[in-house]
Amino acid sequence: MSFNIPKSDKKRVIIVGGGFGGLKLANKLKRSNFQVVLVDKNNYHQFPPLVYQVASSGMEPSSISFPFRKIFQKRKDFYFRMAEVRAIFPEMNMIQTSIGKAEYDYLVFAAGTTTNFFGNEHIEDEAMPMKTVSEAMGLRNALLSNIERSITCSTDKERQELLNIVIVGGGATGVEIAGVLSEMKRFVLPHDYPDMPSSLMHIYLIEAGPRLLPGMSTESSEKAEQFLREMGVNILLNKKVVDYKDHKVILEDGSEIATRTFIWVSGVTAIPVGNLSPTLLGRGRRIKVDEFNRVEGMNNVFAIGDQCIQTSDKDYPNGHPQLAQVAIQQGKLLAENLKRIEKSKSLKPFHYRNLGSMATVGRNRAVAEFSKIKMQGWFAWVMWLVVHLRSILGVRNKVVVLLNWIWNYLTYDQSLRMIVYAKKAKEVREREALEAKTHLGNDILHPDNK
Amino acid sequence: MSFNIPKSDKKRVIIVGGGFGGLKLANKLKRSNFQVVLVDKNNYHQFPPLVYQVASSGMEPSSISFPFRKIFQKRKDFYFRMAEVRAIFPEMNMIQTSIGKAEYDYLVFAAGTTTNFFGNEHIEDEAMPMKTVSEAMGLRNALLSNIERSITCSTDKERQELLNIVIVGGGATGVEIAGVLSEMKRFVLPHDYPDMPSSLMHIYLIEAGPRLLPGMSTESSEKAEQFLREMGVNILLNKKVVDYKDHKVILEDGSEIATRTFIWVSGVTAIPVGNLSPTLLGRGRRIKVDEFNRVEGMNNVFAIGDQCIQTSDKDYPNGHPQLAQVAIQQGKLLAENLKRIEKSKSLKPFHYRNLGSMATVGRNRAVAEFSKIKMQGWFAWVMWLVVHLRSILGVRNKVVVLLNWIWNYLTYDQSLRMIVYAKKAKEVREREALEAKTHLGNDILHPDNK
Repeated sequence: MSFNIPKSDKKRVIIVGGGFGGLKLANKLKRSNFQVVLVDKNNYHQFPPLVYQVASSGMEPSSISFPFRKIFQKRKDFYFRMAEVRAIFPEMNMIQTSIGKAEYDYLVFAAGTTTNFFGNEHIEDEAMPMKTVSEAMGLRNALLSNIERSITCSTDKERQELLNIVIVGGGATGVEIAGVLSEMKRFVLPHDYPDMPSSLMHIYLIEAGPRLLPGMSTESSEKAEQFLREMGVNILLNKKVVDYKDHKVILEDGSEIATRTFIWVSGVTAIPVGNLSPTLLGRGRRIKVDEFNRVEGMNNVFAIGDQCIQTSDKDYPNGHPQLAQVAIQQGKLLAENLKRIEKSKSLKPFHYRNLGSMATVGRNRAVAEFSKIKMQGWFAWVMWLVVHLRSILGVRNKVVVLLNWIWNYLTYDQSLRMIVYAKKAKEVREREALEAKTHLGNDILHPDNK
Repeated sequence: MSFNIPKSDKKRVIIVGGGFGGLKLANKLKRSNFQVVLVDKNNYHQFPPLVYQVASSGMEPSSISFPFRKIFQKRKDFYFRMAEVRAIFPEMNMIQTSIGKAEYDYLVFAAGTTTNFFGNEHIEDEAMPMKTVSEAMGLRNALLSNIERSITCSTDKERQELLNIVIVGGGATGVEIAGVLSEMKRFVLPHDYPDMPSSLMHIYLIEAGPRLLPGMSTESSEKAEQFLREMGVNILLNKKVVDYKDHKVILEDGSEIATRTFIWVSGVTAIPVGNLSPTLLGRGRRIKVDEFNRVEGMNNVFAIGDQCIQTSDKDYPNGHPQLAQVAIQQGKLLAENLKRIEKSKSLKPFHYRNLGSMATVGRNRAVAEFSKIKMQGWFAWVMWLVVHLRSILGVRNKVVVLLNWIWNYLTYDQSLRMIVYAKKAKEVREREALEAKTHLGNDILHPDNK
């Protein structure tokens, strides 16, 4: 296999990852003098801020994802390749991927992060993360299947395990999924399961630190906590989850909570690049970059967004928060800097412009902060809707999401609660197994080797 | 595990399967003097006539499926149970299912059919069927993944295998998927894959009999064939597929067609009921029933729709065609007959009223027959749209499907071409394995045994 990309007079930029940062960079390189190659393990861009609404059956995956090939239809000298990057050989300007090797003039890592299980294998094996559309669909299916089985299981113990929901991690995702599940409990369960008292369902939100939304002000944290408590969520602060055994979440203080719906949104770690030296990595496995997002010691290799850490920004000496806005702004600046390199101009250093942050808790309830302005409640919720609707890619998706929200708001009830798994064809299973094997191996030294 | 359904003064009707027939029956028993229990292996009703549009990325699964619990919200003395039926013990008025046993006063089999691979294990293992939403999603993912890989594969041979599509079975489903894929080739591929000549994609439709749409008039068959040939589909009639090996479909005459997208819509066989005596089964494993849809030799056990065969209808001495309309009409009549039994009235025999049949081939192209009226082309296509839109459950789904169709018609292009698999949680995998094991076993004799 090979990348099969035609040679061009233009210099080639390979972008690894089509999240917020990579996509912005690719877009900004439009009509530039570069050949752009976007590599992503999925064939679509996804919109993480709304993944929790997919998990709660409030929205379809297709409303918050968009095929790359459709985004870049009609784009000249642009190539999309569905692959995972395994290794980098900077001395050869080459990467090794699941579908073969590829040469670059400039390489940009923008692959983001994955869920951090802090090395606990039980938790990794059993917990349900919620970073991707695929994981959200898995969580939705498991949640519905657990409720379905709670009706017919043999013992009260098993019933309680099936109906308890434990969410670990009090960041924005944890707060949002706790909120939306408590609304599902209140507005949907009594109608769908008239013979099961919805009071049997308990939702726990566990945070290791002293407050929810640690990235926001204490005011927002307190308001979010208050909203969630009013909505019936059991909030446990300063509690650390250390294990999961026999359908029980085990806390550091020895206490246990029985559950079979164990949601893990407790932290992230950067997507690894196989052979990148550990000395190049900082906190959370993030790739260390200079003020131009250049990887230390390399001239033509960059990293942007959640996958990198930049300590040169004077307001953020410990690195930027891992937020969409940082990635977008870095992608935008890097596009400009790449053009400047070609024109032998000096590069512009990155400074993050904080546009604010927000989290929604439920109907009419959100918290938002824009520099010195803090908002809570209905107005923050409307702001949240507007900001997120604006950011979603594509007119069709915007319309669908808006109609969905209006429908949900008026009816309190979507009809997306189907448990569906796509049946994986043998051809696809075999190919996946094959591509999983294409690792560092020798083939990089033998260009004609498949 | 147990069904966990409260005892009631009313007699209990258990309906196995919530397709067209089972759903109509359950609906018509509303406000009757029965306790109704609907058992289905999925938690949603699906609409098979549009499954091919899910496979071709033209529509989301949620547009053509509807959760049972939502359909029956507010319905009194109604219970849904997600389970598969394993066996029947008529002498005890009891069924054994994947989640335990259940007693009935009346039992109705309405589980429909599954794909028939005619005993060929290679084909069953490798071919992609397209009867369910789950299979359609699997086919969509495989198709997109194959096209994606055709760009980067190593050899021309592999490229051709990845781009050839072979559809086996020239019934309505085969005709419809062939048509919609040829439109995808024409309207979508050139934009999504500008560096791959779409002329490399070949679509084959293979039918063992002498004509397409054998259930319709020769006039409709010829027109459908003409439409498809104009759209560039390679139609092979009188050709029987006997095997699939090394990415090649093998025909009875020894010829071969290389493909890794091997779609099998060649026939169906009724869903089996574990211990039902083979003497009770007719052609295609269908359960033999009398003119009241009563299973032979049983007083309170019925079968309706595709899962049964009824030879008492004088116009259909070899059994009815396996169509939605037959199932719907049988479900409706059975609801009436069950009420008549309770009132000790005589039963009404079933006569199928043929409302016509239709198949769509592509944009503005369909064939339709209503008693003596035969239509082809644009008008038939509009009829097809109206009839199918009317039949889809729920206002929201109707609106979504209509908007989808309008959008598709105007833009020639949906943005649903994401390759997504829901990540299956360990809890769910373990439970599925457990439920797969609950078979005939002894536990039926020990009511307290889990």
